[in-house]
Amino acid sequence: MAFNAHTSGGRRRSLIIASAALLAAASISLPAAAFADTGDDLSVNGGATRNSTDNDTKAQALRDSIVDGPAKNVILLIGDGMGDSEITIARDYAYGAAGSLPGIDALPLTGQYTTYSLFKDGDIKGKPDYVPDSAATGSAWATGTKTYDNAISVDINGAPQNTLIEIAKANGLKTGNVSTAEIQDATPAVQIAHVDARSCYGPDSATCGDDALVNGGLGSISEQLLDTRADVTLGGGSASFEQTAKAGQWNGETLFAQAEDRGYQLADDAASLAAVTKADQTEPLLGLFTPGNFPTRYAPTPATVGGADAAPVTCQPNPERLDTGLSLESLTDKAIGLLNTGDDDKGFFLQVEGASIDKQDHAANACGQIGETLDLDEAVRAALDFAEADGNTLVIVTADHAHSSQIVDSTPPTSLSAALTTVDGTTLKVSYGTAALGGSQQHTGTQLRIAAYGPGAAQVVGLTDQSDNFFTMANALELNRDTASLSSGAKATLSATTVEPGAELDLAASGFNGDRQLGSEVGSTDLGSQDVIDGTAGYTFTAPTEPGSYSLTLTGRQSGKVVTVAFAVAAADPSSPAPTTTAPAAIVGSGSGSGGSGASALGSTGAVVAPIAVLGGLLLAAGAVLVLQRRRRHHAA
Amino acid sequence: MAFNAHTSGGRRRSLIIASAALLAAASISLPAAAFADTGDDLSVNGGATRNSTDNDTKAQALRDSIVDGPAKNVILLIGDGMGDSEITIARDYAYGAAGSLPGIDALPLTGQYTTYSLFKDGDIKGKPDYVPDSAATGSAWATGTKTYDNAISVDINGAPQNTLIEIAKANGLKTGNVSTAEIQDATPAVQIAHVDARSCYGPDSATCGDDALVNGGLGSISEQLLDTRADVTLGGGSASFEQTAKAGQWNGETLFAQAEDRGYQLADDAASLAAVTKADQTEPLLGLFTPGNFPTRYAPTPATVGGADAAPVTCQPNPERLDTGLSLESLTDKAIGLLNTGDDDKGFFLQVEGASIDKQDHAANACGQIGETLDLDEAVRAALDFAEADGNTLVIVTADHAHSSQIVDSTPPTSLSAALTTVDGTTLKVSYGTAALGGSQQHTGTQLRIAAYGPGAAQVVGLTDQSDNFFTMANALELNRDTASLSSGAKATLSATTVEPGAELDLAASGFNGDRQLGSEVGSTDLGSQDVIDGTAGYTFTAPTEPGSYSLTLTGRQSGKVVTVAFAVAAADPSSPAPTTTAPAAIVGSGSGSGGSGASALGSTGAVVAPIAVLGGLLLAAGAVLVLQRRRRHHAA
Repeated sequence: MAFNAHTSGGRRRSLIIASAALLAAASISLPAAAFADTGDDLSVNGGATRNSTDNDTKAQALRDSIVDGPAKNVILLIGDGMGDSEITIARDYAYGAAGSLPGIDALPLTGQYTTYSLFKDGDIKGKPDYVPDSAATGSAWATGTKTYDNAISVDINGAPQNTLIEIAKANGLKTGNVSTAEIQDATPAVQIAHVDARSCYGPDSATCGDDALVNGGLGSISEQLLDTRADVTLGGGSASFEQTAKAGQWNGETLFAQAEDRGYQLADDAASLAAVTKADQTEPLLGLFTPGNFPTRYAPTPATVGGADAAPVTCQPNPERLDTGLSLESLTDKAIGLLNTGDDDKGFFLQVEGASIDKQDHAANACGQIGETLDLDEAVRAALDFAEADGNTLVIVTADHAHSSQIVDSTPPTSLSAALTTVDGTTLKVSYGTAALGGSQQHTGTQLRIAAYGPGAAQVVGLTDQSDNFFTMANALELNRDTASLSSGAKATLSATTVEPGAELDLAASGFNGDRQLGSEVGSTDLGSQDVIDGTAGYTFTAPTEPGSYSLTLTGRQSGKVVTVAFAVAAADPSSPAPTTTAPAAIVGSGSGSGGSGASALGSTGAVVAPIAVLGGLLLAAGAVLVLQRRRRHHAA
Repeated sequence: MAFNAHTSGGRRRSLIIASAALLAAASISLPAAAFADTGDDLSVNGGATRNSTDNDTKAQALRDSIVDGPAKNVILLIGDGMGDSEITIARDYAYGAAGSLPGIDALPLTGQYTTYSLFKDGDIKGKPDYVPDSAATGSAWATGTKTYDNAISVDINGAPQNTLIEIAKANGLKTGNVSTAEIQDATPAVQIAHVDARSCYGPDSATCGDDALVNGGLGSISEQLLDTRADVTLGGGSASFEQTAKAGQWNGETLFAQAEDRGYQLADDAASLAAVTKADQTEPLLGLFTPGNFPTRYAPTPATVGGADAAPVTCQPNPERLDTGLSLESLTDKAIGLLNTGDDDKGFFLQVEGASIDKQDHAANACGQIGETLDLDEAVRAALDFAEADGNTLVIVTADHAHSSQIVDSTPPTSLSAALTTVDGTTLKVSYGTAALGGSQQHTGTQLRIAAYGPGAAQVVGLTDQSDNFFTMANALELNRDTASLSSGAKATLSATTVEPGAELDLAASGFNGDRQLGSEVGSTDLGSQDVIDGTAGYTFTAPTEPGSYSLTLTGRQSGKVVTVAFAVAAADPSSPAPTTTAPAAIVGSGSGSGGSGASALGSTGAVVAPIAVLGGLLLAAGAVLVLQRRRRHHAA
């Protein structure tokens, strides 16, 4: 009565070099980029203008920039804390007041949006909180649902809200998530996890509460990242992946080990990243290049009281900065290259975050925030270069919330400030006046800029809300947001309807597009969760040794869709043909109509489930304890 | 040898009631105003969105909002100091975070623009000054020329730059200038004056320097206002008009007396304003309703250190607020009604400023700035209502520069702050952290919002500069910016070529469209300046008593165009026909080609100069001193 476990084959990191052709997008100008710097002498009449055409010519260029949907791809670039003031500071410093940021300033369609969050408790539950955090704001564009500060894609009642990465993936698109922060930080987290407290980074986090696996929750952000299984994940935050699961199928294993067990390709430096040439649901890429956040581009120059009266400085390179192959621009290029697999795919959704504009603003570090803004700008330029060449990509650039830094004329007497010499050769004074000395400067509640290019970009013009951005992107990609319905046609088949005791059976499930994991049970024996790969799942298990009738029940973890497959265990009859050669087992669908359609598709079910991911499950017997064994690989450190 | 002066007739203030039909613009929604509040529950999925249509529908609405030029009318509304933060604070307070400002938020086309000014001295002359004042910023959109802080429509070398009101007027459009500030304040001043120092308000100002009339300059801002002669001027600042001219033709008279002498209609309260039914170049309207700036809408609630931790307050009405007939909305409606005279006119340019958003932000008065923002918003709504009904009007709404106020989450410990209870029922904390306690909060240098509706509005989308706004408006109105050329066809005629000694002569000049004043000389005798009314000027003077040949020389003060008319004084010959019945005198033009064209138009010259403004000039003789006498009326106080 023993089922023998079969381990899944360890997945190899591919060493083929990525096609440069996909990355080398043409650097043509945007249709409406009529913002040329018109001359060297700013003081002459018209010398400082940015519009280079007459009214009607620009009007036509603007019309040309309004492109109906759908878009095949969406790239969302977030400057965390990048309000209009932060954009202006970076432009003034690096390109001059009359200059232009090559990426951020090039987007043809622009608007403002509101960023408030909601209160979750008491009499003011559901009412506006005028200064939001990155968790609530990210949740708004990731899910379309406004929520409370601290919430990662759950609503004010704690109910998980489907995210764009989850929905895009369910719709068959490829997905990516890139950040210069630890990947568990709020902005990347909102796309791949649902937790009540944003600091629930890993199994060791003290704040996970009911979200912890050990408490029956969905797990920490890092663990949910592995469940969500974006095709490409690049950022910092490896420390949390060194932590060990406290419950569930990977109890006792590090998250890195779990990632490898579940098929992830791992990268931890520029060379290992460069070696990755393909990333998909079978072998997603998890590149984590620092234990925490990325080092900044420029060395710190903390503001001081009266600092703007000191001799102005120029920003200096940070010797700790990562390899240029790991710049946000490089990561963006790499992600695009891996996600854009060809004309016959369904497209992709990619989120890119320049995270430390916010963090350096909190720290009142003008050079810090400038460098991070420039890094994001280069990533935006890379995205635009791709989008222009591709012609079917929506690029959106915005921020999550505004921040403290202000450009001032004279030095505020009691708050922090700094003076910088800009490329113009004049002095830029930056003030940080929202915190106590030594404290963290605050987010601010002003509306801020959103800009876009490509099919669907028109939605950002005028005044919108951050939550509109979710619908703008989902509609541009024509996503079916009812992801549970995407599993309605799910079906499954076994390699035989009757087997000898202890024989092997192959399970092949398909059509679970609305799910990321399947649960499997034979009777009351839990076979554990199985990752859904492009709507499919498959594994081999050993039949019970006790003859009788059995049924395997598959449950879509996200959709709730249930599919049941019957099989029989019978002692071998030497005069009969071997049971393992019987026709595939009948499929019993639980949903209305799905059983019939599953049954009618019986003949071809096996054929459409390819390749079948193989997992070993040890089904001891009804009521027996499931023991999973997996081959463990060490994270290439 | 004496010329007798004839005084111009005192102009009567019209008492006819203005047509309500011109003011009652339909309140239809804008084509692209797809920003409906979608529901009461902000916490449900999609509950906080502002876009109410799918992507392609909004894209089409946006396309529909892009209208090619020309525009017949342009209304520019400026919120002084109204950065995105100030807009958000007002929205949060009065309409809620999810609400919309009915005017400001309704404009369909939006962008950001840069506002920096330039340094005027030393090594950094002509280089960017990252935090501008209202003088430099206003000069940028009024003239298209970036300049230094403190400059009123002069460049960094002090050279006057033609303003939109001047140019529009030269092109035959009607013009208006409305502000809640004293009308000499920088923002209204940039349209009607050229001075090196913005505080050169009136003849008593100590800062006028070379701009003072007594020093041979163009005069103070108030005096230049009378020269520029917009059709409609409404605001505060009557105090400066009580001052007495120190030089020039009106030496010794108050500016109010001068205004009446020059044909202005005066208004100083809601009733006298309501009584005005017509305003044009013959009888422009000068309505000044307060000695200085208008009182604010809300009573002051100055911020304090730690103030945001105090019990939140609501804004209270200011008992000093002016009559509702003098609200910025009412003044805007009134100005539009007076400027929009019918389908057969050439259209108008109107600037409207909500001035004290800035002033209350300087004073760290949250309720103050909110009330002024709401006042401006109502004016914007009035302008949009007119523009929607008119269908041929460009409306632009923006600010001159950003300001200090920030929405914060917690109370900054050392700087000023205040807490307000908003319409949402939650607490809005506003912080002012750029000045010493008791000091004036600073402008800030961030890019800020510009929004537009109507023909030419597309120019504001994307990133532009403040100076672009001048060209956007000038191009929308198809203005010929070479105003001097607009006087190239100027001509003049006298009522006779030969007159008896001491007889009266009528001078009729026309075609001086590029000028606002003409100088007149007979020989070396200065007849003084004469206001140009719709390109024309006319007056009666007494011929010299000494027989001989004379020539009257007319010089366009702005264009430099010179026209000379010859006449003869001869003793009466009883046997001849009276000299006053001779044909009109020959016109001698100084410009290339203008003499010929002037001469060829001789026969009809008199007919096109109607009505002729009559000024009495006492031309004593060649070399005699000109003495002007005008009938003086008291300002109705």
